[in-house]
Amino acid sequence: IISKLPNVGTTIFTTIGQLALQHNAVNLSQGFPNFPPDPALLHLVDEALQLDYNQYAPMQGSKALRETLSEKTEQLYGKYYHPDTEITITSGATQAIFTTIAAFVNPGDEVIILRPAYDCYEPAIELFGGKVVPVDLVGKDFEVDWEALKSAVGANTRMLIINNPHNPTGKLWAEADMQKFQEILSGTNVILLSDEVYEHIVFDGKPHLSVSKYLDLASRSFITSSFGKTFHITGWKIGYVVAPKELMKEFHKVHQYNVFSVFRPAQYALNQYLKNHDHYLELGSFYQQKRDYFLEAIKTSKFTVKPSGGTYFQLLGYDQISEENDMELALRLIKEYQLASIPISVFCGPSYNQRYLRFCFGKTEEVLDKAAEILIRIQ
Amino acid sequence: IISKLPNVGTTIFTTIGQLALQHNAVNLSQGFPNFPPDPALLHLVDEALQLDYNQYAPMQGSKALRETLSEKTEQLYGKYYHPDTEITITSGATQAIFTTIAAFVNPGDEVIILRPAYDCYEPAIELFGGKVVPVDLVGKDFEVDWEALKSAVGANTRMLIINNPHNPTGKLWAEADMQKFQEILSGTNVILLSDEVYEHIVFDGKPHLSVSKYLDLASRSFITSSFGKTFHITGWKIGYVVAPKELMKEFHKVHQYNVFSVFRPAQYALNQYLKNHDHYLELGSFYQQKRDYFLEAIKTSKFTVKPSGGTYFQLLGYDQISEENDMELALRLIKEYQLASIPISVFCGPSYNQRYLRFCFGKTEEVLDKAAEILIRIQ
Ligand SMILES: CSCCC(=O)C(=O)O
Ligand SMILES: CSCCC(=O)C(=O)O
Repeated sequence: IISKLPNVGTTIFTTIGQLALQHNAVNLSQGFPNFPPDPALLHLVDEALQLDYNQYAPMQGSKALRETLSEKTEQLYGKYYHPDTEITITSGATQAIFTTIAAFVNPGDEVIILRPAYDCYEPAIELFGGKVVPVDLVGKDFEVDWEALKSAVGANTRMLIINNPHNPTGKLWAEADMQKFQEILSGTNVILLSDEVYEHIVFDGKPHLSVSKYLDLASRSFITSSFGKTFHITGWKIGYVVAPKELMKEFHKVHQYNVFSVFRPAQYALNQYLKNHDHYLELGSFYQQKRDYFLEAIKTSKFTVKPSGGTYFQLLGYDQISEENDMELALRLIKEYQLASIPISVFCGPSYNQRYLRFCFGKTEEVLDKAAEILIRIQ
Repeated sequence: IISKLPNVGTTIFTTIGQLALQHNAVNLSQGFPNFPPDPALLHLVDEALQLDYNQYAPMQGSKALRETLSEKTEQLYGKYYHPDTEITITSGATQAIFTTIAAFVNPGDEVIILRPAYDCYEPAIELFGGKVVPVDLVGKDFEVDWEALKSAVGANTRMLIINNPHNPTGKLWAEADMQKFQEILSGTNVILLSDEVYEHIVFDGKPHLSVSKYLDLASRSFITSSFGKTFHITGWKIGYVVAPKELMKEFHKVHQYNVFSVFRPAQYALNQYLKNHDHYLELGSFYQQKRDYFLEAIKTSKFTVKPSGGTYFQLLGYDQISEENDMELALRLIKEYQLASIPISVFCGPSYNQRYLRFCFGKTEEVLDKAAEILIRIQ
């Protein structure tokens, strides 16, 4: 068998997840909460099952849910997306990202990603014959090298993928960053794919600057979000994507033959649940409290910390602890200390400064305590 | 915007579905039951939600469900698939089909389909730069033209897609057909993709001859099934696919970056529910009763009938009624008679004998009565 993706193995989340299980490790690797979602949301799914929302949803998703999301996006970011033609419910943001790449990337097209980059972008680009053009984020603050990005954009650039808040670094883009993106893309035909799955998990009073707030950007953009992250239901695999009508039309051509539609009872439930805006507006303070609890608990450890600005991930630097590379250290922590994390190198090329491990703090205080106790012990 | 799929519009199921709604038509177009699934199955989903199966399922699907499906396949078809490496839970059979094509079809590869063919194969093949090689089913019995198929297989043939029981014709492949497929593929590297979503909906005492019963075929095959069809839950978008380990490895490379995993609570529920084999073994007689009821009710109509051998679809010929093409007639029946069906031409090329409409009889007797009353009126 000649593989179309010879360099692709099993995702790091599966590999590390299995190792964590084998070694009975405290698992702060794959991003998911270890606590249940709101019982009210579960009850609404049961209601949908009983009301017999059990046959195909419309291809674009339930109309009522699309209408609610249209209102939400307009209220939060001031941009109106038409529910009938500009919003699609997807089988998680992953499927939205894959389908966007599928619908637009042709063999030979260049797609720029900012590294470290979430692990699903590269293989999808390669599958469609695209060329990945990485631009590294630089320095301790993971700043964009604007000159590098500017010179990466050329005649063959089909797409730029950004991620805000940024996984794995926890970086939040600032107003100046958004202006720069706008400046660099202005006058080009580049499609922007903005992965905003952690849009509601932002800290320290700083706002999430969605691409939908910037009309010049929005007119060329797909923006994707995830109910899994927002409502503690990563296993439901449901998210959505917005884009201008002409772009969404091309997305639908692929979407309808990829998954066709998405688990319908959850669409009924999420629509009801979204009516109470607190259900997502309070998410930032909920996770900020967890971040602060975790950082306080590890403050005597030798790991170095720059507090995460968003997402439920925290990078920890280990310069004062070990000379190992990040993969070696991550594996050793699982085996010797029963603590699982994700080495940053899986999100970036070999040239990158990889002396970080990523920890998911979307966990109960009990689990965060256990992890902290181990992190303090590591010398 | 330059489209990657310039010839692809909106799926017929969306288009006709919307028309049916507008005209308040009796809807026998898109295939889905208009009655609820077993309350016991719904209860199991609620149980899963309460037991907090709400975070990511493993990428391949829940282990318990894969084990149960491994047993089922061995019992029914005598073929063992390893639950860890040869069975994957998918977001409906559609996603399994799309992902199989994604994982194996390269630009320039030829993929043979037997027309009429279900509508999701062609666009997926084209999206990956493959060339669709159609072989028409011939005559009133929709027989394979074996010579045509044999000469279609060549050095560039990457894949053959078959569908059994066959949508839209209701044809069931016989032992002689399976032998022929085996003979023609023997000695080639062609991958077989067998779409068996209606595997349990077979009539008149004839068995479903799954590709998994034929070891020579099975060793080169992906075989996909659908819980949506089997348990009256098309809106849940959950199915599965089996294949030998080396092939499934390539499937996973795409699957993990397309959807990653599938709605987990349903996986828990379906695993429990599958333990009672009657839940699927009795499906054939359940739908045969509906087919017979429908055919009895329309026996004085002028439509011509060859009883469906499987699936929940019945083709009706209209030679004695109209000179219109099938699309014209289908649209007229919606507008003038408030009855929606699918014209067969959407599943085949313009050269094909298209003088059939497809009706879904997976409906309550009340709806079948209404449809029959209209069909009798059409002169
Ligand atoms: C799709 S599993 C990965 C979950 C996740 O988003 C992460 O851990 O970064
Ligand atoms: C994915 S919607 C189409 C349902 C179906 O399988 C059919 O009607 O043929």
